[in-house]
Amino acid sequence: MNQQISIGLFGFGTVGQSVYKVISGAKNAHAQISRICVRNIAKPRAVAVDPSILTDNPDDVFADPSINLIVEVVDDAEASYRIVSTALRRGIPVVSGSKAMIARHLPELIELQREYGSALLYDASSCGSIPVIRNLEEYYDNDLLLEVKGILNGSSNYILSRVFDHNEDYNAALEKAQKLGFAESDPTFDLSGMDSLFKLVIITVHALGVYVAPERVFTYGISTIHDADIRYAREKRMKIKLVAQVVKVDDSNFTMFVMPEFVSPSKYIYSVDNEYNGVVIRGECYDRQFMFGKGAGGLPTASSILSDVMARRYGYSYEYKKMSYIDRPRYTTDVMLRVYVHYSTTDIPSLLPFEVVREQFISADDNYVIGDISLGQLMAARQVLSAPDVFLANIPMFFLDRDD
Amino acid sequence: MNQQISIGLFGFGTVGQSVYKVISGAKNAHAQISRICVRNIAKPRAVAVDPSILTDNPDDVFADPSINLIVEVVDDAEASYRIVSTALRRGIPVVSGSKAMIARHLPELIELQREYGSALLYDASSCGSIPVIRNLEEYYDNDLLLEVKGILNGSSNYILSRVFDHNEDYNAALEKAQKLGFAESDPTFDLSGMDSLFKLVIITVHALGVYVAPERVFTYGISTIHDADIRYAREKRMKIKLVAQVVKVDDSNFTMFVMPEFVSPSKYIYSVDNEYNGVVIRGECYDRQFMFGKGAGGLPTASSILSDVMARRYGYSYEYKKMSYIDRPRYTTDVMLRVYVHYSTTDIPSLLPFEVVREQFISADDNYVIGDISLGQLMAARQVLSAPDVFLANIPMFFLDRDD
Repeated sequence: MNQQISIGLFGFGTVGQSVYKVISGAKNAHAQISRICVRNIAKPRAVAVDPSILTDNPDDVFADPSINLIVEVVDDAEASYRIVSTALRRGIPVVSGSKAMIARHLPELIELQREYGSALLYDASSCGSIPVIRNLEEYYDNDLLLEVKGILNGSSNYILSRVFDHNEDYNAALEKAQKLGFAESDPTFDLSGMDSLFKLVIITVHALGVYVAPERVFTYGISTIHDADIRYAREKRMKIKLVAQVVKVDDSNFTMFVMPEFVSPSKYIYSVDNEYNGVVIRGECYDRQFMFGKGAGGLPTASSILSDVMARRYGYSYEYKKMSYIDRPRYTTDVMLRVYVHYSTTDIPSLLPFEVVREQFISADDNYVIGDISLGQLMAARQVLSAPDVFLANIPMFFLDRDD
Repeated sequence: MNQQISIGLFGFGTVGQSVYKVISGAKNAHAQISRICVRNIAKPRAVAVDPSILTDNPDDVFADPSINLIVEVVDDAEASYRIVSTALRRGIPVVSGSKAMIARHLPELIELQREYGSALLYDASSCGSIPVIRNLEEYYDNDLLLEVKGILNGSSNYILSRVFDHNEDYNAALEKAQKLGFAESDPTFDLSGMDSLFKLVIITVHALGVYVAPERVFTYGISTIHDADIRYAREKRMKIKLVAQVVKVDDSNFTMFVMPEFVSPSKYIYSVDNEYNGVVIRGECYDRQFMFGKGAGGLPTASSILSDVMARRYGYSYEYKKMSYIDRPRYTTDVMLRVYVHYSTTDIPSLLPFEVVREQFISADDNYVIGDISLGQLMAARQVLSAPDVFLANIPMFFLDRDD
């Protein structure tokens, strides 16, 4: 408690360098970066550091008895897993920002924390600077919580925002996002919804105490969005946003998915533009709370990592309290959704088992169908929906009477 | 740690009854209300409770060895102070929602917590359901924080919202707010800005680690707002909102005040309507974060109290870490503001020592002057400004180039 923190930093890219800058500049952090482990020592870097603290051998960090915290911001899920699990096994606490790795390995990482009495904090993994995980874990630590829904990916939101608010072309907007450094090293990660999915998986553990493996969650991205979809949304005075949500559908069940969604101006997330993230937390007594902030970029992520580092000074760790709750809700895909599906050559009306078809539009260039279908059936039809001429978006139906 | 919580509840009005409902209904709270202390046992109440747990003698609660937490939601600052200080002296932790009492006695209450090794939590005291205190204390626990600014009072915001968004008359809106139960027992408390002030004093302790006594803070309310002011704001496409803020003006100094403010549509707080509260937290790396939620009403406040009760299960207490920071910023009123002052009979231009007068308007019915004046001089002129024909509003000048 209240100890001086000596950090071994893994990764020295955009986020790693920002972490270095923020921690070196924080006069009350009582923390310093003692070693930095990188893949390539010789690589030229914008931030100047004492070369003697650089190493390319992870063991130099793990074996250093003065190091009492690992900060891991490596852009490679495999390497990240090795670093984090090694550190936890050695009883060294870790602060990590690796959402893909955490979303895939969380049950095991929770087990490792318990077994070795160590701690893993990862608020930076979800929504950059917005303290979503910490608040779900500590503050919304009760069974009033009904829903967490939001825009969790900064770069896809930036692109959609350029398209809808600035009338830019999708590809031009994508290029700009990459130039500004909002996109991950592989932009398909953002555009396919995978990045949002990983964050949603982590959020669900802290929201409802249930881990759902990423592959069990229906995830649809924005990369096949078509001019006709943008036009259609504009005509209805809506925006299309990439939305991740986990929702209690009744007392015993919840569902979750990542999908483009038609968002009307009355919703909080309508005004979440550019690289920002916004999360709506809905509960039984407080109705809706909205948290909004920068979701992408080195410095916002670094500020979140600094908060976790500071928390370690006081021995903070996640208790995963909700995982031990009685009557935890169960994950279900047995919920009815209303979706818009655009297509040109794929024969969507005959390939998708709609319960009810609400609208159908056929023309020389574009076709779309709007209909009701269960989430389970959408999952079963993932192959069909992945055709390059198809674009799917959620029309929030069972939220029709709500102002979220 | 992880103990069963047995609660002695003081106060059984709107908030107290909501606390009772929420805690009785929370299946994972591991908490129960064992005794309820009220002023008048015989008073009929909407919520039915076992009469044997009611008492009008505080000692019945303090002397009960099974009670390990006091929840205090008494609507009387004097009584609240007696309850909280007695409990802390006896080593019983307390959850309180009494902002006026806490804002006035915080240094002493911090001392009592230290001396008797007890804990006082009070997230419900500021912004109802929004976890502002907990986040400032735990998550923004570093010196990156530059500003906390927001709408902290639900009922005055409800009234201004009816006036600006629904073209209602000020007095009709006030009446409606009281009918809906948004106003405190004494509405002048809300309208004079005192309620916002008390919250701001508490927020400042957790934001910057500095306690500033309420009487040292310039506070101006909305009760003298005039149709001409509303018209003027509308013409400029702005809204007038009652805004509380604490702002670092440079590395070593901060200022704070509560004042009506002209808010343009590009600001986050512009869209905080009705009884909602909204807080913007600005920092060096993350720029702006915005938290938004219900600030008034029994259930939102009760949900916040439940969060504090749950936190006590894990022995949580505020560390007041920032109070021990080196180079804490100092409170100053030596900052220049630009203000709008409306008047009819009081001779504002000759009574207020403006540095520069920017605009002056004189007519048969209304007059106003816009000018630059230091906060210190506004404080010195409190007497003049309290005349019933005078209304003052801040024109955010030194924020001109910022998008808050």
